[in-house]
Amino acid sequence: MPTDPVALTAALVRCPSVTPDEGGALVLLEDVLTKGGFTCTRVDRGGICNLYARWGRQGANRTFGFNGHTDVVPLGDEAAWTMPPFGAEIKDGFLYGRGATDMKSGVAAFAAAAIDFVQDTPPDGAVVLAITGDEEADALDGTTALLDWMKANNEAMSVCLVGEPTCPNVMGEAMKIGRRGSMTAFFTITGEQGHAAYPHRAKNPMPAMARLMDVLSSRVLDEGTEHFDPSSLQVLTIDTGNPATNVIPAQTKATVNIRFNDTHTGAALTSWMQEEADKVAADFGVKVDMRVKISGESFVTPPGDLSDLIGSAVEAETGRKPELSTSGGTSDARFVKDHCPVVEFGLVGKTMHQVDERVEVAQIDQLKAIYTRILTDYFA
Amino acid sequence: MPTDPVALTAALVRCPSVTPDEGGALVLLEDVLTKGGFTCTRVDRGGICNLYARWGRQGANRTFGFNGHTDVVPLGDEAAWTMPPFGAEIKDGFLYGRGATDMKSGVAAFAAAAIDFVQDTPPDGAVVLAITGDEEADALDGTTALLDWMKANNEAMSVCLVGEPTCPNVMGEAMKIGRRGSMTAFFTITGEQGHAAYPHRAKNPMPAMARLMDVLSSRVLDEGTEHFDPSSLQVLTIDTGNPATNVIPAQTKATVNIRFNDTHTGAALTSWMQEEADKVAADFGVKVDMRVKISGESFVTPPGDLSDLIGSAVEAETGRKPELSTSGGTSDARFVKDHCPVVEFGLVGKTMHQVDERVEVAQIDQLKAIYTRILTDYFA
Repeated sequence: MPTDPVALTAALVRCPSVTPDEGGALVLLEDVLTKGGFTCTRVDRGGICNLYARWGRQGANRTFGFNGHTDVVPLGDEAAWTMPPFGAEIKDGFLYGRGATDMKSGVAAFAAAAIDFVQDTPPDGAVVLAITGDEEADALDGTTALLDWMKANNEAMSVCLVGEPTCPNVMGEAMKIGRRGSMTAFFTITGEQGHAAYPHRAKNPMPAMARLMDVLSSRVLDEGTEHFDPSSLQVLTIDTGNPATNVIPAQTKATVNIRFNDTHTGAALTSWMQEEADKVAADFGVKVDMRVKISGESFVTPPGDLSDLIGSAVEAETGRKPELSTSGGTSDARFVKDHCPVVEFGLVGKTMHQVDERVEVAQIDQLKAIYTRILTDYFA
Repeated sequence: MPTDPVALTAALVRCPSVTPDEGGALVLLEDVLTKGGFTCTRVDRGGICNLYARWGRQGANRTFGFNGHTDVVPLGDEAAWTMPPFGAEIKDGFLYGRGATDMKSGVAAFAAAAIDFVQDTPPDGAVVLAITGDEEADALDGTTALLDWMKANNEAMSVCLVGEPTCPNVMGEAMKIGRRGSMTAFFTITGEQGHAAYPHRAKNPMPAMARLMDVLSSRVLDEGTEHFDPSSLQVLTIDTGNPATNVIPAQTKATVNIRFNDTHTGAALTSWMQEEADKVAADFGVKVDMRVKISGESFVTPPGDLSDLIGSAVEAETGRKPELSTSGGTSDARFVKDHCPVVEFGLVGKTMHQVDERVEVAQIDQLKAIYTRILTDYFA
């Protein structure tokens, strides 16, 4: 009897696996996959649970890998949910719950596809599932822990498909062959407090902050590249917290986020911002501190065998030829890309991270069919 | 027996007259002045107490006026005071307490000087004291209430001396013949919230804010005028309150304060800022709201009879020829200037509004002597 990806999605949604809690989701998958003939290994690190499952021989010539996560973001405004957030209730063709699209349905679809595929048409190779419980937060002990463990234990994937939602509006319209890089810079500018009537006895950090943020946000980083949209720098917040109308503040802070394509590296952008910060510090006679966090560098798996394989499977099942996209935020593909060629394809992600997150039930079945066809074509 | 200005200062400091509380200060002065031969009238308005006291004939040809306030600012960090803030205790030659310099000592000095002067050498004219309980806050029902009442009741001053502290460091070094204007502008810039990875679906208000604040704070308003320092514009705060590193905020706010000399008017500066705001709104496609509060226009009492009178009295008592200053914040002289020529002179204001506010006891006696000499010379 075929594995039902909708029932598996529902069972996973009922596990309250808000990062870093395992919530029963990986235990459930370990059970289902073991029964399906997979060798499962729990790869836990730093209080985070992860699951590695392989069917077939270690070191097989052709190993197809799936990557995904079972952890979910917090509920947000719980009172605003109209359906139980861990209830997996179905209404008007949609299954509701936190993680319904991001990405318990994706994990359920590739697990169901893999279990049925290896049973129905045992391939000459291996199928691997690397599933993490730490993608939504810092991702320090998630997919990286799995990849580290794989390297240490001679486990490998020839190619990898990440099952994150990739379609903005309609099933099948897009896959991701890369991602922009993302980095965040935190600025603190310090001057000297004083009375607004005696500015010469103070050193106002605000003009320096205005200038620096204007300079940074005015630069056109690039016009886009072959596979990427233009890079984008956004000033996200400036905060001073000075309620008095007669006091010059001592300090002000700002946060800047950059989504950058393959024209740039995190290091080069850091140098540029540091230069501008130093210039402003000198021009205005203030102290400018900058702290940078690089969440991921930009990367691309150039169009080729893997994207062709996935594109034609999607087209066969949906009638749509998926666009090769590199837009959006970050995903664990940024780690996998150092291991093997990686592409992302999943269902429509419209409600991810929102209140009343939900997935169209029909899309879960369709996604399983697509993943099954990808496996079939890969091992053909 | 001469009136002791130190004892009177101490008695006033013991009255907890934090704006808008009368605290017993004006009741005390009314009693002392009535006993000294002054006709006293309570001019209360809007829950605020004020005191008008006149010695001599109404409508006298020569009427010398004193203006001051008995209200004080709050204690601030009460635990940080090393002396009781309403205790008026004397230690090492200093009298401690909230209002010790700003400006209960000034009020005590001119009240003591006036009482003794009219008794010792009754002048051919009148001496008027207009004392308010509402200077430190919005000043809506303070000196303006007194001036309104005076106009309605045919009371007038030929000239007026405001007894605010005017000396930065050393007794006698400066008097004020005018004040810069002060205005505050509150900006709100509104765009559209969105995800930092999809900036084209949002409208970030931050670049517009950075540009506007840079434009406003970069303009050199003027180089100063005959009697005034250069005007100064200070960005006091920018606040957004966006804690997320992946969210473009919908709105950001800023506050700008301008201290301006007689090159400008509040209206002209408002127009200029509105123009710049409109330009930025158009350039960045955001909504820019501006609200302006003009606390006072700049004004000057040109050097002449009044400043000469006060300057030579100060020099005779202290050996220092006071500089004619227009620096610093606002005072009630901005209201009095519409009534008659006004100059400000008082003692050293170093600790005003601070924890452990204190006044040098010897300066109170010296200030009474200066005010006495001014009265003597004026009526000579």
